Amino acid sequence: MAEEVKLLGTWASPFSRRIEVALKLKGIQYEYIEEDLSNKSALLLKYNPVHKKIPVFVHNGKPVAESLVILEYIDETWKDHPILPKHPYDRAIARFWAKFVDEKILQTLYKARGAKDEELPGIIEEAGEQMKILENELKGKEFFGGESTVGYLDIVVFSVAYWFQVQSQVLGVEFIPEEKFPVVCKWIGRLLDIDVIKSCVPPREKHLAYIKARIEAARAASK
Amino acid sequence: MAEEVKLLGTWASPFSRRIEVALKLKGIQYEYIEEDLSNKSALLLKYNPVHKKIPVFVHNGKPVAESLVILEYIDETWKDHPILPKHPYDRAIARFWAKFVDEKILQTLYKARGAKDEELPGIIEEAGEQMKILENELKGKEFFGGESTVGYLDIVVFSVAYWFQVQSQVLGVEFIPEEKFPVVCKWIGRLLDIDVIKSCVPPREKHLAYIKARIEAARAASK
Repeated sequence: MAEEVKLLGTWASPFSRRIEVALKLKGIQYEYIEEDLSNKSALLLKYNPVHKKIPVFVHNGKPVAESLVILEYIDETWKDHPILPKHPYDRAIARFWAKFVDEKILQTLYKARGAKDEELPGIIEEAGEQMKILENELKGKEFFGGESTVGYLDIVVFSVAYWFQVQSQVLGVEFIPEEKFPVVCKWIGRLLDIDVIKSCVPPREKHLAYIKARIEAARAASK
Repeated sequence: MAEEVKLLGTWASPFSRRIEVALKLKGIQYEYIEEDLSNKSALLLKYNPVHKKIPVFVHNGKPVAESLVILEYIDETWKDHPILPKHPYDRAIARFWAKFVDEKILQTLYKARGAKDEELPGIIEEAGEQMKILENELKGKEFFGGESTVGYLDIVVFSVAYWFQVQSQVLGVEFIPEEKFPVVCKWIGRLLDIDVIKSCVPPREKHLAYIKARIEAARAASK
């Protein structure tokens, strides 16, 4: 029986892009279903009734939600080209940083969207402190986790760091200036040179327009 | 060489209690170090410089932070008496619910602490909706995950559900009334009958006094 592998996502979501990177790195064929979040499909509501959010990964009819949970599921189910490190300690460290990225850095990214001009310097400083932690963690390594190839933590950090860069361009402020974070910036460049990663990055102009619209909506809402 | 296993925690923290339950279920000897969070030890600051929070688990000198990450580390390192389910799909579901508990239910618990009297009915309703989801998830099973013994998700849910019950007693309101949530309430009772769980529950009177003080502090802060 052929495997049924589906991904419900949106083109601009760093979370569903994470799953696409993992699937492509492992060479898993999948059907991608673009969701319209302003008019959620019956499939999405059926498969993720708790959060009603993408991404949802569906494997032979069984749904998994939450991007970090999906990445682990994929890595445990298709064992070739592992994305999580092998040793329990390295796995724990990767999970720790993934949580840090999703709970701290991502919140700073969202906060920047709705911020008033006078609030931005404080948020840039906050982002800088978080980036500094990642900069130190990555120093001396080619990839996060110290592996010789892209892995789980690279996928997780990249989705947020790259989105931060696109947002920087829209806002006209530098969240990850190269002179302060040369290690992270070089690593982003290194990842963008990898075909699988490149193919999972939204088209630049469309992405910029999307982020601009999100910022305008967030600013209007916070007024 | 004897293994060095240390846990930095606080007696009233559901998060460090989670780790103690896992260690005891697996029969792992450990040294418990009580932290004073108003005067954090050099050890805590050294081992968790990012969040400066307990629990921190230290194995042969190497620290792991974040309770869910620690539980996975322990399960991958000491393979006897596994706490996570075996099948990748069941593991994914367990991780999904653990995230739900920590991100949703726990936030409701904290919100109830600082709430004004007139805000409590809304919070009780919110908690009820979340509990209903867990009630449905547990229906027909003896333990979460459908296993025949206490596992990862039981440990995670219990720590929050039990703490909710203690807080209910202090506030004089029912967050998990037995007539509405018979399955969850029976399951809490079943867990409290297990020696390991019983030994990891804070002394009741001391716990009540502690939660009362936390509620008073939260209410004073929100005025």
